Amino acid sequence: MNLSPASAAVSPFALWRETQQAVVERALQDWLPRQAPAGLGDAMRYAVLDGGKRLRPLLVLATCEAVGGHTGSALRAACAVELIHAYSLVHDDMPCMDNDVLRRGKPTVHVRFGEAQALLAGDALQAFAFELLVPEDDSVQPAMAARLCRLLALAAGAGGMAGGQAIDLASVGRTLDQPALEAMHRQKTGALLQASVMMGAATAQTTAATDARLAEYGACLGLAFQVVDDILDVTADSATLGKTAGKDAASDKPTFVSLLGLGGAQAHADRVLDQAHQALRESGIERLETLHALADWVGHRAS
Amino acid sequence: MNLSPASAAVSPFALWRETQQAVVERALQDWLPRQAPAGLGDAMRYAVLDGGKRLRPLLVLATCEAVGGHTGSALRAACAVELIHAYSLVHDDMPCMDNDVLRRGKPTVHVRFGEAQALLAGDALQAFAFELLVPEDDSVQPAMAARLCRLLALAAGAGGMAGGQAIDLASVGRTLDQPALEAMHRQKTGALLQASVMMGAATAQTTAATDARLAEYGACLGLAFQVVDDILDVTADSATLGKTAGKDAASDKPTFVSLLGLGGAQAHADRVLDQAHQALRESGIERLETLHALADWVGHRAS
Repeated sequence: MNLSPASAAVSPFALWRETQQAVVERALQDWLPRQAPAGLGDAMRYAVLDGGKRLRPLLVLATCEAVGGHTGSALRAACAVELIHAYSLVHDDMPCMDNDVLRRGKPTVHVRFGEAQALLAGDALQAFAFELLVPEDDSVQPAMAARLCRLLALAAGAGGMAGGQAIDLASVGRTLDQPALEAMHRQKTGALLQASVMMGAATAQTTAATDARLAEYGACLGLAFQVVDDILDVTADSATLGKTAGKDAASDKPTFVSLLGLGGAQAHADRVLDQAHQALRESGIERLETLHALADWVGHRAS
Repeated sequence: MNLSPASAAVSPFALWRETQQAVVERALQDWLPRQAPAGLGDAMRYAVLDGGKRLRPLLVLATCEAVGGHTGSALRAACAVELIHAYSLVHDDMPCMDNDVLRRGKPTVHVRFGEAQALLAGDALQAFAFELLVPEDDSVQPAMAARLCRLLALAAGAGGMAGGQAIDLASVGRTLDQPALEAMHRQKTGALLQASVMMGAATAQTTAATDARLAEYGACLGLAFQVVDDILDVTADSATLGKTAGKDAASDKPTFVSLLGLGGAQAHADRVLDQAHQALRESGIERLETLHALADWVGHRAS
């Protein structure tokens, strides 16, 4: 055997992840409109392409694989959920919200294209997410398409992400206790991460019991993601994150670190990740390696 | 016979319109979230309730009646399309877009709730529109729900309304000829009005030939709507319109009036309405009274 150190270091999960990230990137490249009028298409593509970990798409695809679902539908669902995520970042970064200038290592959309175009690009990306789920050619079976639309709409709306953002806005400068902070994040970032798992599951026929455990996995993974996000906001620099570090403390937002301290936040993340792994083991699904690995990846990421 | 002048003056269409407007208002009241967090639900309800002509819902419901479609699905579609319209007004009125302070006779959403909440309320309304189309209880048959989602997503997105807004933004201070102006409005307002008709048609099994004529009706009605809008922007006052009159001229936007003059614009509206009526007559549908009356209503409205 003559393995180079580099190839020996590539784990099966890393290989899967990079392969699927490339598949998602290619699909987004192909599907995002090139010809949208008056620069709108450019702003939409800029907001979505060439950046991000694609965690949400990976959750959709890994769950689809685990349950033996329909891969064509899962790829559309994976891209749709990423479009919702991307639009939320565009709107979040606008001056009336977080007023951020750096995202994924690039100027934010409103800095590059102007506020009005950023607003429209976000709006159009949300519409496009739903369009992707209901292709004209029935390549997603209609009942499945309807179910995917419902999961995505619920996760994106007032009971999910948008509602979480509203709580976040209202909580600046206020003291939140841990239950209130977790409730906010369950909506703000957790709903879409959990929906990614459930959309993957919706590409197959799953039992209610399996769905319940997968929902728990998605919820725990979503919470762990946010706790680690708060840790990284303190410990990482802007170059590593690709976005402005230290924003939360500077804007006086409550975080898990401000509440629990760095060590306490890491211990909390570890506990919640254990719950995620446990939920998977109780799911009745056999092929769980990738979902387990995704949870670990979320818990130990550096950016 | 002892008809009072008032009751004698109520046409069957006016009666139908007022009845259906009340049905839509009630459904929106019931369905819009009351409990959304941190004031988001209040902003969403403020943006949607107690205002507007409900033209788009009326088009959905009238077309459903004309083709003998499923009324429960049509009511959801009617509300969904109004939610998309309402969210677009909220975002349009924001300072980075048209910067308007008056809408439907009330302060605009960002004036009342702040810019960040207005942005989120618009985003949440768009998600809620799709949620309405895919109820958990299958009261909209899944294949129909998927079709309705597709029609709505296409009309709202980069190839429809959002794209039209982008063209509109890019055309301020520029000279557009009539084809370019019509192309802009075909997307900006026409796409959603046309989709309202097609979503009504999608609540039944219609032939491709009927759909083609209904699409023509929707396109002509949408264009007439915009031409009349441009006329009213010049001839009506803000109190009558419930929004700021004279905005287009003040912001140096190209309009049908600036292009054709007042008389020319009215003649154009009449021509386009004739085409709408003609398309209906060729549709093969029998019960056309309400759709004809809606076209006349659009053409002769005072606000």
